[in-house]
Amino acid sequence: MKRDETMVNAYVPGQGNLSPQDQALVARRQRLLGPAYRLFYETPVHLVRGEGVWLYGADGKAYLDCYNNVASLGHCHPHVIQATARQAATYASHTRYLNEVVLDCAEKLLSHFPPELSQVMFTCTGSEANDLALRIAFAQTGGTGVIVTQNAYHGVTHTVSGLSPSLGAGVALGQHVRTIPAPDPAQMAGDLGQAFAACVQGAIDDLHRHGIQPAVLIVDTVFSSDGVFADPAGFLQPAAQTIRNAGGLFIADEVQPGFGRTGGHWWGFERHGLIPDMVSLGKPMGNGYPVAALVLRPEVLAEFGAKGRYFNTFGGNAVACATAIAVMEVIEDENLLHNAATVGQHMAEGLRALAKTHDSLGPLRATGLFLGQDITNNGAPDGAEAARVVNALRDAGVLISATGPKGHTLKIRPPLILQKAEADLFLTKLDHALKR
Amino acid sequence: MKRDETMVNAYVPGQGNLSPQDQALVARRQRLLGPAYRLFYETPVHLVRGEGVWLYGADGKAYLDCYNNVASLGHCHPHVIQATARQAATYASHTRYLNEVVLDCAEKLLSHFPPELSQVMFTCTGSEANDLALRIAFAQTGGTGVIVTQNAYHGVTHTVSGLSPSLGAGVALGQHVRTIPAPDPAQMAGDLGQAFAACVQGAIDDLHRHGIQPAVLIVDTVFSSDGVFADPAGFLQPAAQTIRNAGGLFIADEVQPGFGRTGGHWWGFERHGLIPDMVSLGKPMGNGYPVAALVLRPEVLAEFGAKGRYFNTFGGNAVACATAIAVMEVIEDENLLHNAATVGQHMAEGLRALAKTHDSLGPLRATGLFLGQDITNNGAPDGAEAARVVNALRDAGVLISATGPKGHTLKIRPPLILQKAEADLFLTKLDHALKR
Repeated sequence: MKRDETMVNAYVPGQGNLSPQDQALVARRQRLLGPAYRLFYETPVHLVRGEGVWLYGADGKAYLDCYNNVASLGHCHPHVIQATARQAATYASHTRYLNEVVLDCAEKLLSHFPPELSQVMFTCTGSEANDLALRIAFAQTGGTGVIVTQNAYHGVTHTVSGLSPSLGAGVALGQHVRTIPAPDPAQMAGDLGQAFAACVQGAIDDLHRHGIQPAVLIVDTVFSSDGVFADPAGFLQPAAQTIRNAGGLFIADEVQPGFGRTGGHWWGFERHGLIPDMVSLGKPMGNGYPVAALVLRPEVLAEFGAKGRYFNTFGGNAVACATAIAVMEVIEDENLLHNAATVGQHMAEGLRALAKTHDSLGPLRATGLFLGQDITNNGAPDGAEAARVVNALRDAGVLISATGPKGHTLKIRPPLILQKAEADLFLTKLDHALKR
Repeated sequence: MKRDETMVNAYVPGQGNLSPQDQALVARRQRLLGPAYRLFYETPVHLVRGEGVWLYGADGKAYLDCYNNVASLGHCHPHVIQATARQAATYASHTRYLNEVVLDCAEKLLSHFPPELSQVMFTCTGSEANDLALRIAFAQTGGTGVIVTQNAYHGVTHTVSGLSPSLGAGVALGQHVRTIPAPDPAQMAGDLGQAFAACVQGAIDDLHRHGIQPAVLIVDTVFSSDGVFADPAGFLQPAAQTIRNAGGLFIADEVQPGFGRTGGHWWGFERHGLIPDMVSLGKPMGNGYPVAALVLRPEVLAEFGAKGRYFNTFGGNAVACATAIAVMEVIEDENLLHNAATVGQHMAEGLRALAKTHDSLGPLRATGLFLGQDITNNGAPDGAEAARVVNALRDAGVLISATGPKGHTLKIRPPLILQKAEADLFLTKLDHALKR
């Protein structure tokens, strides 16, 4: 079966078992949206409704959503929708007028950060947050060199797509971008933190050799697109110190791990006992509403603030901020950090138990409700089998995807409200899917 | 009085007549949001509610909004809010699942374009749309050279801020960016279209001299930040032909002029009787909801589509698209293109009448409900007097701002639902404000 070379788990037009109606929809998509859009799965899923951990197809079929980290509180959470609608009916304008909502949101958000990270700037997307982080870092450090991991994803603007090698060979890396291996304990000998920091130092040396001043080490703190690397806790510290020693800044990309995803903490970097210079936020921040942000140490913003201004028409608008406040309220009120930790632990134990009867279940890397389960064949990565499992689960009514440079890591990322019974349902369905 | 050198009509902290409560709010803003944010007016306005053409202050004061081109249908339009809330409660996910709403939105949007512009890609902000346009143009043309006007504004990502000289000297232009004079009939002798095209050709020649292949001429089709230039209709044609002759693409930035603003047309480029290669949309597209798009000729997307994929988590999500559909329905149902044309004409006539008794009212440039009224002193641009008028109007309960490289052009841009009686109220207040 033909594969899309640019993306794991992408639909290849002309394949799959689409109904005539869905075939027509696919054709309409291609005509209206053009060739750059991708659908998931060998047979794409046609969805019309969401509620909690469930998504529903046009044919009424229910799917247990174990993948979407935007609707992190569950699909269509009533508290969030009401907050959006209430504010939209009251006042919806931007940050060039005085208004409390943006400040209430900023204050609530910053209350979940260490005191050193005391300022926030609002954008609409994680891409915009990472892009802004670079502008600020370039201004502050005077450097232009950027270090990322080999299968990193940091967004889709022209600049940040240039530091997103996971977009594939067709998207050029920036000339001042250097890639380093992901902190994979299976690939790096000795102390993981020291080994990863040595890679950072190697990239710094290479930048210097080309006359480029290092500005930034940016990592997704759970290495989502590299294959999910979270352990041992603390391993990021030496890398962050290394870039700072070279006059650069350490940016934690929390667009995927943030807002409780990794369990027990609000942010992935907390697991590592360090304080980044900047932290980018996005996806789950509005549970579907487009809101994102950059949290930072005031001292790194000084030069950018002195040189110019920042205005993002929708960034920090009152509706976005009321929505983000509601999201944080739900995380607090429903005790979702705790739930992500305990149900995540339950899922990880279940996967380990399944591995005893399924040889193809290789190493598991997990923190909270972000789980990366390798699919292997005699110890070797097996992307084809991972794809088969992902599609078998889709047919069985469970949505996950795969990740990593070889596409052999099952990416399991359910809403933070997932209950143990639903985790068990996932495990049962996976058990079946693994039996070819 | 001290001025902010980086922005027209910016509040300078420590000045103005703020209440103690608002002083505290300003201090809280600076603490939480840092030094890059700006407020409008000598004394910022503290707003808490919006309805139709009116905004309301925390003190209950009503402001006639003659400035905000996001809430183009009027603040808090019930039809739009209901569409947002209804879809948010039903299904809110992204473009990697099949869903009709994004296609319905695409189809409705494209129905308002000439048939050559037959594909659309969704983003969240105008900045993202322009940034994507550049990525596509670079891929398609193989060039990297970009031509913009001298006081252009195209957005805030790292790349597009580099083609936004209006952000001030502190924000570096891209190395492959060239600026040309705005098409100001008062400054260019002879046929305006030919004169402007000659400037484009000059920039192309300069790019070639530096070994840079031209990729793009991008203009805001009403030249919002350059001072509002709309006449004579058709003057953009030779410039578009000139960049195409050099192998580049012509991008119409419709983030400000689009969705009926210029009166009688949906898009500013229609006034010029040409068909761009790409058209970027933003601000009013969701009447406050963060939704934006790039409309294009399929042939310019071929190379980008072949090389990689595009995914924007929130771009094209079902709620954004349901909201944009509702916005277009209101424009159609309330006949707002016609209203913008007739009430805009009424406002322009009123300004011309006022000019007979106020020497400081210089040239007026206007199309639909986008009006640029120069403030002059013996024929010379008078930015200080423009600032005084803007602030006097603010005190009198009317919101406008100023624009252009010298800040001497009153920027008047009310919601498209403005009625003649409200236009007359604006004119009366302006008459008073002009009397020092």
